[in-house]
Amino acid sequence: MSETAGTAPAAPAAQDSVALVEVALRRDAEDELGKLREKFTLDEVVYLDGNSLGALPAHVPARMADVLTREWGELRIRSWDESGWWTAPERIGDRLAPLVGAAPGQVVVGDSTSVNVFKAVVGAVRLAGDDRDELLVDATTFPTDGYIAESAARMTGRRVVVVDPADMADAAGPRTSAALVNHVDFRTGRLQDLPGITAALHAAGALAVWDLCHSAGALPVGLDAHGVDLAVGCTYKYLNGGPGSPAYLYVAERHQAAFDSPLPGWNSHADPFGMTPGYRPADGARRGRVGTPDILSMLALEAALDVWEGVSVDAVRAKSLALTDFFLECVRAYVPAGRVESLTPAPHAERGSQVALRCAEAPAVMAECIRRGVVGDLRRPDVLRFGFTPLYVGFADVERAARVLAEVLADIPAEVPAG
Amino acid sequence: MSETAGTAPAAPAAQDSVALVEVALRRDAEDELGKLREKFTLDEVVYLDGNSLGALPAHVPARMADVLTREWGELRIRSWDESGWWTAPERIGDRLAPLVGAAPGQVVVGDSTSVNVFKAVVGAVRLAGDDRDELLVDATTFPTDGYIAESAARMTGRRVVVVDPADMADAAGPRTSAALVNHVDFRTGRLQDLPGITAALHAAGALAVWDLCHSAGALPVGLDAHGVDLAVGCTYKYLNGGPGSPAYLYVAERHQAAFDSPLPGWNSHADPFGMTPGYRPADGARRGRVGTPDILSMLALEAALDVWEGVSVDAVRAKSLALTDFFLECVRAYVPAGRVESLTPAPHAERGSQVALRCAEAPAVMAECIRRGVVGDLRRPDVLRFGFTPLYVGFADVERAARVLAEVLADIPAEVPAG
Repeated sequence: MSETAGTAPAAPAAQDSVALVEVALRRDAEDELGKLREKFTLDEVVYLDGNSLGALPAHVPARMADVLTREWGELRIRSWDESGWWTAPERIGDRLAPLVGAAPGQVVVGDSTSVNVFKAVVGAVRLAGDDRDELLVDATTFPTDGYIAESAARMTGRRVVVVDPADMADAAGPRTSAALVNHVDFRTGRLQDLPGITAALHAAGALAVWDLCHSAGALPVGLDAHGVDLAVGCTYKYLNGGPGSPAYLYVAERHQAAFDSPLPGWNSHADPFGMTPGYRPADGARRGRVGTPDILSMLALEAALDVWEGVSVDAVRAKSLALTDFFLECVRAYVPAGRVESLTPAPHAERGSQVALRCAEAPAVMAECIRRGVVGDLRRPDVLRFGFTPLYVGFADVERAARVLAEVLADIPAEVPAG
Repeated sequence: MSETAGTAPAAPAAQDSVALVEVALRRDAEDELGKLREKFTLDEVVYLDGNSLGALPAHVPARMADVLTREWGELRIRSWDESGWWTAPERIGDRLAPLVGAAPGQVVVGDSTSVNVFKAVVGAVRLAGDDRDELLVDATTFPTDGYIAESAARMTGRRVVVVDPADMADAAGPRTSAALVNHVDFRTGRLQDLPGITAALHAAGALAVWDLCHSAGALPVGLDAHGVDLAVGCTYKYLNGGPGSPAYLYVAERHQAAFDSPLPGWNSHADPFGMTPGYRPADGARRGRVGTPDILSMLALEAALDVWEGVSVDAVRAKSLALTDFFLECVRAYVPAGRVESLTPAPHAERGSQVALRCAEAPAVMAECIRRGVVGDLRRPDVLRFGFTPLYVGFADVERAARVLAEVLADIPAEVPAG
């Protein structure tokens, strides 16, 4: 890489490759989490796109066959009670809560991340009170958060102020109602300082709303420990819930009684089956529900969470860092100087579970990597994105990915001569 | 029934029962839609709760096994393109459109009904302009519509005016932005005058937003023909999409360019994968999308819609009316006078596809009906609700349901002596 490996050779040296393969095999043999891989449906592909869509936990299809044929097909309407469909959003929220460092009763599953961002941001600015008219939004946010925050601000009479996460602590002031920040930057993989930013917001009297899409399931979040106010996240990345599986909303217990949802659907009513014209919100996490939950997607997620039984998030984090370190090491060893530049911070404290490489030929390079069995993704115009899911990615995968990347780069000439 | 059958005997007469069974068998033999029943997973139960959760189309589990194991498990991220996941909301919207009388390009599937009510109502009041500050809401609405409409009004500076649908036409005036009306009353089964109310709203310069949850799939809706502005509906009742399957939003083509969604998630961006900070809405139905679609629930719905191939909605409506007529006839013949009172209008033009019977002992009666294999549902405190899905309910089912109801009523004494 241009920044850190200016002296790397123009092509992988054979001795480097042998040494790194040996390292990979040794580390895989020592990996305590390595046995989890067999819980997923995987093949010869090196799948480094689990930060976009997690792999299929192998037992999910059998569970869904039962949901479809018995719970829906035979019990039909009775399943709302007898199969626990009605309480699924809170039950699965509680299953998920330990993965984000939340005590029970604060997480509810349902709706998309975007819809939950709307609930969380509107909820937060209302909690902050009408005399605070500014909403800080992460300048590097995944786009939907910014679009939805703008709508939430417009509909609550607030003004969006776009702020780089590094400046968020300084930007918070007496007019700040809340800040919406991505825990991990979807593009670069940078891990933001959740404890520090949250504390700075609180010092200014503002609320912290965190988007955990790219962190939950890959590293410890510590929502309760760090006093986060509200949070949202998706479940189809490192949580492997399936395509478009429902997102979740965290409302810290201390805020629940005053949480004023902009989407007060009947599922959040204190007595939903009373079906009365007047709205009276439920207590607790259920206040974050809206309409009838999408049971098939939701129960696939619930089953997918089984793979976390007995898994320590700290162990996952340790392996994640080892994987991304090793990938960067292999890339340095294999990839010709100047062809890629890492956008992902080197310090562990600033790194999520992905590596983003800027590459002038990124679209063609990623297409060819995928053709050769190394699946990452592209963020236009020029970012190669590789996500590392510690539950099913091993060190040999990582070495192979870097090797294939180097081979592809050798076959696709640089558009501008390197160096 | 007390209103219409004051002279009915206190218990079913044997000759009535024989005659009605013969009628039922003859009608089932003549029923052109009768062969559709085998497309569903049904058993010995008489399932009259398809207006709450439609039965399982028998081929859906096999389709979902393929979605899970091949599309998710093997293709993984590639399925967003290669399996058509990304375009599913519009594609399934177009599949569904003929069932509600909409030309292609106006219906998009995704999110819950409640979330879609929010989009539709906020969209409608914005289309109507800021000088119209009142939002009419159906006094008999399913509760979630009322709760969400109240939030939409609060967040757009409008005032909710609760109006009985019968008075909606007169209530519309120069301050009316829009009206939100349920096409069929969830409690009584009354079919509202969609063409007349829509025309009256238009005459007042207001927009018509219809909730089709209890009509779509049971009777012709004619959204385009009657000039409806926006509409929403669920897909898990008469459309058999599965528990909590995604709802849909209709925005008439003439309004699409000005439709201003309160939930402008990245899926509704003109260039979603550009991932730019500024929001620029997509054209067409896609503007109604929000976040990543819940693919498992959505593709189950898509498969479920296969049963509609070659089915005429007019034929469904004719059978629906015949079923509800016959149920009312059997109830009159079998049920002791004074024990139940129909809340469902007798005129066909005012009847949806359900029959609601008020019964003082409704909770105990429905529980016992279900125990004896006739599944309807209860709307507290005193309504027995029976839904008739013409795709899989037959006339013999109807006769049996009325007979079992009469038997249950004979076994459960009236709390207050009848008549």
